[in-house]
Amino acid sequence: MVKVSVLYPNKPGARFDVEYYLNTHMPMSARLLGPAVKAITVEIGRPGPGLDDMPPFAAICGFTCETVEDFMGAFTPVANELQQDIPAYTDIAPVIQISDIRIG
Amino acid sequence: MVKVSVLYPNKPGARFDVEYYLNTHMPMSARLLGPAVKAITVEIGRPGPGLDDMPPFAAICGFTCETVEDFMGAFTPVANELQQDIPAYTDIAPVIQISDIRIG
Repeated sequence: MVKVSVLYPNKPGARFDVEYYLNTHMPMSARLLGPAVKAITVEIGRPGPGLDDMPPFAAICGFTCETVEDFMGAFTPVANELQQDIPAYTDIAPVIQISDIRIG
Repeated sequence: MVKVSVLYPNKPGARFDVEYYLNTHMPMSARLLGPAVKAITVEIGRPGPGLDDMPPFAAICGFTCETVEDFMGAFTPVANELQQDIPAYTDIAPVIQISDIRIG
């Protein structure tokens, strides 16, 4: 199994609308990507104890698929639609990581 | 629930011994952290199609706990022992992210 992670690296003054992301963008992603995605995880970074302590990543999302080819087959036809929605919730350029799931 | 993620950002020439990490460091982590950790995930970055295409992160590990306090209570007494094992498998300085699990 592979996990495609989408990470949003924080920066001072970055904008990230958690409620839009959770309630609009992620349901849209699940619907557009369809059954090739076996599991979806979303983690929202917690601020540190100080006022200016931002987490390294505003959010980290994971899509679990059987193979990279399964993910690409689901993602490629809907990539434009998903990417065009990004400015609705953030000005952070996401980082994409493709991993083999070895534990978990 | 919270997830404490340990991310190893790649760099050219970085060293990361996947087998040591999976077979020695992660079992040691699970044993030392104990029952406060409810789930452990490990993802190993896949190289891209080109010879020099390294994934953004060599590895991403996640510890799921009920609360940040649960994690810190488990981690603090064993932090030195765990951190002293890092050079055995990598020369990458890990990035620590503490997140709220919102989906998954």
